Amino acid sequence: MQFELTKEFIDLLKDQIENNDEVGIFNNVKDLHPADLAEIYDELSIDEARFVHVKLDDEVAAEVLVELEEDDRERFLKVLPSEVIAKQFIEKLDSDDAADVIGELPEDKQEEVISHLDDLEHAGDIVDLLSYDEDTAGGLMAKELITVNENWNIMTCLKEMRKQAQDIDEIYYVYVIDDNEVLKGTLSLKKLLLTATNRKIANVINTDIISVKTDTSSEEVANIMDKYDLVALPVVDQLNRLIGRITIDDVVDVIREEAERDYQLVSGITQDVESSDSAWALTRARIPWLFIGLFGGIVAALVMGVYEVDLGVNPKMAFFIPLIAAMGGNVGVQSSSIIVQALANNSMGFDSIGQKLFKELGVAAINGIVLSTVIFAYNYYFNDSFALTVTVSAALFSVIIFASMFGTFVPMFLNRMKIDPALATGPFITTVNDIMGLFIYLMIGRAFYLIF
Amino acid sequence: MQFELTKEFIDLLKDQIENNDEVGIFNNVKDLHPADLAEIYDELSIDEARFVHVKLDDEVAAEVLVELEEDDRERFLKVLPSEVIAKQFIEKLDSDDAADVIGELPEDKQEEVISHLDDLEHAGDIVDLLSYDEDTAGGLMAKELITVNENWNIMTCLKEMRKQAQDIDEIYYVYVIDDNEVLKGTLSLKKLLLTATNRKIANVINTDIISVKTDTSSEEVANIMDKYDLVALPVVDQLNRLIGRITIDDVVDVIREEAERDYQLVSGITQDVESSDSAWALTRARIPWLFIGLFGGIVAALVMGVYEVDLGVNPKMAFFIPLIAAMGGNVGVQSSSIIVQALANNSMGFDSIGQKLFKELGVAAINGIVLSTVIFAYNYYFNDSFALTVTVSAALFSVIIFASMFGTFVPMFLNRMKIDPALATGPFITTVNDIMGLFIYLMIGRAFYLIF
Repeated sequence: MQFELTKEFIDLLKDQIENNDEVGIFNNVKDLHPADLAEIYDELSIDEARFVHVKLDDEVAAEVLVELEEDDRERFLKVLPSEVIAKQFIEKLDSDDAADVIGELPEDKQEEVISHLDDLEHAGDIVDLLSYDEDTAGGLMAKELITVNENWNIMTCLKEMRKQAQDIDEIYYVYVIDDNEVLKGTLSLKKLLLTATNRKIANVINTDIISVKTDTSSEEVANIMDKYDLVALPVVDQLNRLIGRITIDDVVDVIREEAERDYQLVSGITQDVESSDSAWALTRARIPWLFIGLFGGIVAALVMGVYEVDLGVNPKMAFFIPLIAAMGGNVGVQSSSIIVQALANNSMGFDSIGQKLFKELGVAAINGIVLSTVIFAYNYYFNDSFALTVTVSAALFSVIIFASMFGTFVPMFLNRMKIDPALATGPFITTVNDIMGLFIYLMIGRAFYLIF
Repeated sequence: MQFELTKEFIDLLKDQIENNDEVGIFNNVKDLHPADLAEIYDELSIDEARFVHVKLDDEVAAEVLVELEEDDRERFLKVLPSEVIAKQFIEKLDSDDAADVIGELPEDKQEEVISHLDDLEHAGDIVDLLSYDEDTAGGLMAKELITVNENWNIMTCLKEMRKQAQDIDEIYYVYVIDDNEVLKGTLSLKKLLLTATNRKIANVINTDIISVKTDTSSEEVANIMDKYDLVALPVVDQLNRLIGRITIDDVVDVIREEAERDYQLVSGITQDVESSDSAWALTRARIPWLFIGLFGGIVAALVMGVYEVDLGVNPKMAFFIPLIAAMGGNVGVQSSSIIVQALANNSMGFDSIGQKLFKELGVAAINGIVLSTVIFAYNYYFNDSFALTVTVSAALFSVIIFASMFGTFVPMFLNRMKIDPALATGPFITTVNDIMGLFIYLMIGRAFYLIF
């Protein structure tokens, strides 16, 4: 049944590789799914993985390549001549996977590999696919399709499908086109099973179809397939001619990657990294935002320098700086992440920026009143300076309002400027709110110490 | 083709509802997909939505209900008698959707609705499904299946499938069982098309199948379907008897919801909310973490109180408190989010907690050395106190190391204790690191001011 990767299995396999026990290795890996093999490679050195790789069935070996992480695949292919890449891998893969693998190679190697392909139709499909941006429907689609003509009857249709099905892994829908290759509808396999064989297709097709153009963004493709619960989505050109299909497994990857990216951005990680990446890769992904935090900290120090006299007179004021800064940061991240998620899910509704800000103002006001009342009560009982008590509460309320407004506005503004709103989450919002919070606090403090 | 929801459309529809223009409404909504109708309901008041709802085809009306958000559905059903819910909605739905809708009703109403169902088999399926936890394979699966016996030939199989297919929306796989209902394999529709009709099924089935048990967690179901690129996954009981199937559309929802939940937790939002929820719901989701931040701020103030004398002697020390606190928070969130993602993706590998901490120590050391060197240079040129210069750099380095270790350890520890590691991200890690950072800074400061 399902394979469970264990440390024992890896240790055994490493032993077998070291002892050149070809039979043992073969028996251990022969029935495994390419996705499991890719996980196994992750635990092996590159030489060990290559040793296993050559023992695999060609078809499986090609699939494993697709399942690997991009950087592992790159290392794997680097030493192989173009002809081997073409004959042993690319020819065995579906057009979309083939194009993805070739697209990662250096430009000159791409041409070499393509020139070694024997199947010219496959080569043509791949070249077509390479022309699309990878973040669009064109970049996600495969050219393998089962298409039938609307003028055929079910019998002809079944015969043609048998021919075409040889090259295709899974059939979800049969696409119906007219004589000009324009997409007219789909034929569900259920309909095929339930319909008499002499009827014309045109009478049983489902014409109520959803399709996308090649330049539709992958994010929109994912939203459409998720919303309408589709397992496959046809892609058409400007003349509505059917040119490919996107399957749900590729879209699940898009959804996961987008979610991971947003998650990493809100956590202050700038590049796609995994816990298993090298310490060096992890550092590079993390240090940019830390520099922003450092810069923010220096600005905060300069702001406090301006108020040095006030702090000298009332040193206790410094005690509540961490509280004010932390609350500004927390509120700002909350506000911005709600907007980023709404934008990602297409659930912003028709509210204008003004309306969203107004609603957020309500939320901020409730939070602000509750929290500043609590800190007022605390300071009133445990703190002997009434000026400080009032200052902390008033500043906390103001900071919550400011941080909410700023956290809500920035991602909406970026989105309107066609910049990814997720860039504004996490450390950026936190840093700005830290500084602004500090500034508000010290300003209010100066005023209130004059009054009380 | 695809419907695009516009403000104009909603305004028109609202007008038509107000003027009781039944024909106009019907023409506007008759061809729409249930998912689009659910989005339209979102923009209408509950009475307006009900007005549209009764104009819909029964089948579509039931589907719209499934597409609504849980709280909208609750409000929608609250006023309807159990018999109407049973006859107009539940009977029209697949068993999994029916069980989800019924499961949200109050207990006594659940029984009433079920007692009104005419189709006893459907009712039985629903009662079965209601017994499973909603976060397990049992809670995700539907009972609608196409099953054939391994002893049949393709011809019998096709005939039986025609019978069974009437009740099922989409066929992805045909499941093959033996006389004891034990799952033996799958028959792909492709195989059905390519095989002669007199062959026995047993000769053409794919026995290399992946299935899950009813109590497999929905997270694991999602990981399996994603990893092996499956569109449907059979669910079996302890005796390997086939009892249901999970389809990819439900799993896409699981993946999205999990990602959203982790995202909200790292942003300090405790409940699932959307930007369109009421200000009150948004406040309730946000204020718990703000209270933790407030509490952390009070503790920070108390810590500083202990070092009041030091701060009085060297008031400039206060200037770098925001920097130290912010860096501790940022580093901690980075570290914990990398672990949370690795745990969610099942990509932790075989490293022990110790090994992960050791690697993180390396990352922290590089970041720490770079950043504390930069702040050393800054303070050396722009700050006249050498003691402060050394203190800030030494404290920054120590805080980065501590925050990394703490941020890495806590989610791994929670995971081992079977607690959701995502709970440790965001404000919790930030708050603890704020306080610890402050403490480390003030302690180091006291030591260095004695030395220099």
